Amino acid sequence: MFSRPLQSLLRQYSRLLSPPAVSPSPPALSLPRLHRALMATQVEKEVQLGPLRVAVKEQGDLIRAMKAEGRPNLEVQAAVSELRKRKTALEKKEKDLIPQEAKIDRGKLEDTLKRRYFYAPAFSIYGGVAGLYDYGPMGCAMKSNLLSLWRQHFVLEEGMLEIDSCILTPEPVLKASGHTDRFSDFMVKDEATGECFRADHLLEDVMESLVSDPKCPPEKKEEYQLIRAKADSYSQEELAGLFTRFSIKSPVTGNSLSPPMDFNLMFKTSIGPGGALTGFLRPETAQGIFVNFKRLLEFNNGKLPFAAAQIGKAFRNEISPRSGLLRVREFEMAEIEHFVHPEKRNKFEKFSNVADLSISLFSACNQMDGKSAESLTLGDAVRSGLVANETLGYFVGRIHLFLTRIGVDPGKLRFRQHMSNEMAHYASDCWDAECLTSYGWVECVGCADRSCYDLTCHVTAAKVDMSAKEQLSEPLTVDVVEVAPEKGVIGKQFRKEAKVIMDALAALSSSQAEAAEKEATEKGSYELEVGDKKYTLQRNMFKIKRYQKTVHVVDVIPSVIEPSFGVGRILYTVLEHSFGVREGDEQRAWLALPPCVAPVSCSVLPLSSNEQFSPFVQQIASSLKSRGISHKIDDSGGSIGRRYARTDEIGIPFGVTVDFDSLQSKTATLRERDSMRQIRASLEELPGIVSSLISGQLSWAEVEGKWPTFTGPESTQ
Amino acid sequence: MFSRPLQSLLRQYSRLLSPPAVSPSPPALSLPRLHRALMATQVEKEVQLGPLRVAVKEQGDLIRAMKAEGRPNLEVQAAVSELRKRKTALEKKEKDLIPQEAKIDRGKLEDTLKRRYFYAPAFSIYGGVAGLYDYGPMGCAMKSNLLSLWRQHFVLEEGMLEIDSCILTPEPVLKASGHTDRFSDFMVKDEATGECFRADHLLEDVMESLVSDPKCPPEKKEEYQLIRAKADSYSQEELAGLFTRFSIKSPVTGNSLSPPMDFNLMFKTSIGPGGALTGFLRPETAQGIFVNFKRLLEFNNGKLPFAAAQIGKAFRNEISPRSGLLRVREFEMAEIEHFVHPEKRNKFEKFSNVADLSISLFSACNQMDGKSAESLTLGDAVRSGLVANETLGYFVGRIHLFLTRIGVDPGKLRFRQHMSNEMAHYASDCWDAECLTSYGWVECVGCADRSCYDLTCHVTAAKVDMSAKEQLSEPLTVDVVEVAPEKGVIGKQFRKEAKVIMDALAALSSSQAEAAEKEATEKGSYELEVGDKKYTLQRNMFKIKRYQKTVHVVDVIPSVIEPSFGVGRILYTVLEHSFGVREGDEQRAWLALPPCVAPVSCSVLPLSSNEQFSPFVQQIASSLKSRGISHKIDDSGGSIGRRYARTDEIGIPFGVTVDFDSLQSKTATLRERDSMRQIRASLEELPGIVSSLISGQLSWAEVEGKWPTFTGPESTQ
Repeated sequence: MFSRPLQSLLRQYSRLLSPPAVSPSPPALSLPRLHRALMATQVEKEVQLGPLRVAVKEQGDLIRAMKAEGRPNLEVQAAVSELRKRKTALEKKEKDLIPQEAKIDRGKLEDTLKRRYFYAPAFSIYGGVAGLYDYGPMGCAMKSNLLSLWRQHFVLEEGMLEIDSCILTPEPVLKASGHTDRFSDFMVKDEATGECFRADHLLEDVMESLVSDPKCPPEKKEEYQLIRAKADSYSQEELAGLFTRFSIKSPVTGNSLSPPMDFNLMFKTSIGPGGALTGFLRPETAQGIFVNFKRLLEFNNGKLPFAAAQIGKAFRNEISPRSGLLRVREFEMAEIEHFVHPEKRNKFEKFSNVADLSISLFSACNQMDGKSAESLTLGDAVRSGLVANETLGYFVGRIHLFLTRIGVDPGKLRFRQHMSNEMAHYASDCWDAECLTSYGWVECVGCADRSCYDLTCHVTAAKVDMSAKEQLSEPLTVDVVEVAPEKGVIGKQFRKEAKVIMDALAALSSSQAEAAEKEATEKGSYELEVGDKKYTLQRNMFKIKRYQKTVHVVDVIPSVIEPSFGVGRILYTVLEHSFGVREGDEQRAWLALPPCVAPVSCSVLPLSSNEQFSPFVQQIASSLKSRGISHKIDDSGGSIGRRYARTDEIGIPFGVTVDFDSLQSKTATLRERDSMRQIRASLEELPGIVSSLISGQLSWAEVEGKWPTFTGPESTQ
Repeated sequence: MFSRPLQSLLRQYSRLLSPPAVSPSPPALSLPRLHRALMATQVEKEVQLGPLRVAVKEQGDLIRAMKAEGRPNLEVQAAVSELRKRKTALEKKEKDLIPQEAKIDRGKLEDTLKRRYFYAPAFSIYGGVAGLYDYGPMGCAMKSNLLSLWRQHFVLEEGMLEIDSCILTPEPVLKASGHTDRFSDFMVKDEATGECFRADHLLEDVMESLVSDPKCPPEKKEEYQLIRAKADSYSQEELAGLFTRFSIKSPVTGNSLSPPMDFNLMFKTSIGPGGALTGFLRPETAQGIFVNFKRLLEFNNGKLPFAAAQIGKAFRNEISPRSGLLRVREFEMAEIEHFVHPEKRNKFEKFSNVADLSISLFSACNQMDGKSAESLTLGDAVRSGLVANETLGYFVGRIHLFLTRIGVDPGKLRFRQHMSNEMAHYASDCWDAECLTSYGWVECVGCADRSCYDLTCHVTAAKVDMSAKEQLSEPLTVDVVEVAPEKGVIGKQFRKEAKVIMDALAALSSSQAEAAEKEATEKGSYELEVGDKKYTLQRNMFKIKRYQKTVHVVDVIPSVIEPSFGVGRILYTVLEHSFGVREGDEQRAWLALPPCVAPVSCSVLPLSSNEQFSPFVQQIASSLKSRGISHKIDDSGGSIGRRYARTDEIGIPFGVTVDFDSLQSKTATLRERDSMRQIRASLEELPGIVSSLISGQLSWAEVEGKWPTFTGPESTQ
């Protein structure tokens, strides 16, 4: 399967692929120093990455060649698996090459998030449940700000139709969408303990250990490597055969395992008391929009294009939840379905608004060639055909604007195109917004052109019309082929059933009529299906009429462009990208959250516990409250410096401090978190200034220009 | 069971209880006329209601007497069932006596809500599922506004800690809370079709039909009536006996029925691939707060009181969902848990803010006496002890303010106190905010003082400490009773287990030590439980020490005051209370929704399809958008009057119209929905005016005083 040169290439660089020695938590850097550190190592990095890039490209070229030669699908799939492994090796190396001091100290971040109750494992007093997390007050406020910005940025700005559909979903809906059949993995079960494992992962591990056994003969090694590479493409029977052949046991207990079985990732339940109606917790919010398409279209006066949106929980019964908020069993999604005439996808009125935006695009081609993402304007990307159409490009741009607005570092954001083997057969193009985190590149938003797949599924299953009527600007002349039943002959032969048959014949579409004629001519008879029944009609039982007709309206099943957001993943990414420690004080962790998503907008602090400060604190607090600005009073003991540090830790961007000057001059100080600089202004003015800073109407520089700066006791410990 | 006079009384007034003849949909009235109609009939109503009030009071007095005499519980329960029936009869009569023309035309409302896509049955293209509804764009926007106001009114205003916990809940949590054992009804199942029925309801129906059979002998009649009255208090075995005795069959098919079985109303599922972990969809959001209590307390620096809040979906597998949004299987809740020192419930700092508020209170006493709700200030209600404490009273007041602010008609809102038989044994007082709708009085918000029940359940089940530490202002001297084990004697007898026993003895609380002494003295020995094991200790194995000690901190398990909001019910009530038709035009239905909850805040309408209007329409729309004001452009054909009517139908409070004058004078008109009056102002000013009207900074009267009024073509059809 693998050409010799590639194997030796891989061996040669296996040293590079080995995990770095575990080092103690690196000292985290302040953001500007971090940036410098990243730049300096760029050249050195490429020297190390080069060979891995070559390895990817060689495999990519091999696959292109295999496809050109028309090699069997299974062979191509195995080669693709190998390509994926090489890509993973390249990405891992890229991650390892990030200078230690520029890496985030995830332990410290997680400690901060847990201690300040952003989120925490759910039900921990009962021992917890893997993959379930609860958002505490800070995480909940941040999520709520994030979703409210999402509503502003997408729903309000684009005039989308937001709906809120049910989580409980009856089986036929998810049967139609393909989720009951395809949303699954193969599992094996420890026959004694009942513990479950993903069959493909376990097979890979076993092959890995066989290959690395020094006693393994070379000819076997190659076979095992092939099996490992193919692990995720075997059928249930093939997997069962391999598990028997290698006598694979539970890696935990050594017990026997059940044969591989299909495990559906949806949570199943029963709706109603009878137990007859099987339901699932929705695995995505999108289906709720598709099943309501007719109502939404009607709400939009029957006109295309329009978009519907939904925010809500979805559920996946992950086999092995891991990586904190990144792979969980219950999560929040925000999804958009933009419905558009399939032939009008490439014209989007507002595309010009994003055409000049430079975006980091990681094309399928670059992935095959072992290259990195490249910066391109969306205008160029669509013009060159890299991004399939203007509509898809517009949403890529809007997603980029949203993510960077809420605090995703643009330097750690790329849009990765799905390679043809990853993409569902119906999708015409798909770009994932991926963010670089300490877990590697994480898919945070998917943006796919799903053509008319989803609606067509429901049209077929529910037998309802889901087409939009397109009013043609100019009437169209179309060729019509019609079946004209010979009433006499049919009536004589079929008696009571004649009516049903004649109705069915009359309802055939032009293409069906053509097919009927062809079949009857070639085979001498045509087999007509009506419901469950089949009728054999002789050639003399119908005639074919051909004519032209003028139509003013045509039926269109719209295409769907689907941007789909994983809210928890985005939230976690923003937290990682905002996390740092103060220069010169490693213990002072802080979050540089944008004011628009920070869980609390403003702190109100009396300089000390002196009771005279209290009325001023109350006055400011109630004035902030009346403006709808979230705030937190910290009148606990502790120096003002320590209390500033506590507010920084939860990312509060602004802080008003009442001090002794306040008593006479009716002023207080206002501190900005990022610069830690302060100004002094009157108690009346302050809430307005804070409000303008949050909304972005005023910048901190402007505030410093307008009000006197104040040198506060920031560092008092 | 029933005294003869009461029976004759009931017979005498049975005429009054019979349902009114079905009449065609009444002509709906405009709101002022409706109010007059209601007032005029007040006197006449009381004449008809009097006897029913007497019937209720007599039964109430009977129960009081039975309790005083200490009659057996089952007898009292049966009498309470009868009381409930008489109360229902009284309420039904009250509802019937609402003049036809003042009643809402529910059919017309529902048609409007469906047609304008506020909400609709879910999955209807697949035949639908009872009890599941999807919110369309209008309902979703309204719900989102309502929840955002709830956050402002409760979370922000009171500084509550909002969390977002999981829907999936492992079994032990709901076992501890009592939901797996008690959150159920008895069911019987058609043995052939599997159709299910609530056993108590079916038994009531069967008794009802036996009693109404003219051939039924009088002595039997009395027995059947008793069974009917007791139907909801029988045990599973008793029910099974009755079903056999009366050979009760399925009312639908006549098939045999299964014996009664417990049907839990929670949706069950399995978490993780092993199938070993049973989970449920939460039946309320409250448990998510209780299991996180420790973290929340810590977040609040260990201080009481504080409140936590949560908005989210909850699920109940209703046997027979009905009444639209009122009884559904998946619904949104908003719950608050206010944690407070049990002895400090009666002091709430901000109570004075609501003390003068007049609230319609329907006390348990008035319910027993057949009286109506009475208007009282909350100050008086708490002072007199009617409402248990200031904290509970404060929340009753805040709930009242919230509901009336979002559009609940204060004349159709009452707070009904739970009668002692309705209240959970642990609750000390409970008031439901009930709203009068076409379905009768509907519970929209519960507000209960649940004492320390919930936390104690989890303390016991999860074996974790959930107490707050109360720092005493003055140190307290307490009596301590301690068990001092006699090491020698215990060691000799129990050998290896001696250590476990001595540790367990040393850990006994003062009251447990007292009990141990008493038991050992009376019975000669004391039985000590350690885990699963029991040890019999002779009196000589331990001594009792008594002394005093000074404590500065005491452990306190806080009490919980729980306001719990059913979002869908509130939303439906607001829609009903806002619904009317325009005076003189029955076809023109409209919703008088307050601007703060209306799904869309402002419409933008060109007077006609003249293309010159378009840039003005766009200018206004983008200016509204930049202020975050939701708006809807209606540039469809149709007269301006018809388009106003369409915006009224979805409750849009304000509308800007661009007309021919706009072209020259750069002005447009602004129309207010309720008065249908208009003013004219400049295009620059208009968005600001709309914004001030929505926030309440400007009233419409003030706007009319400041800008010239405009007589528009309202009635153009």
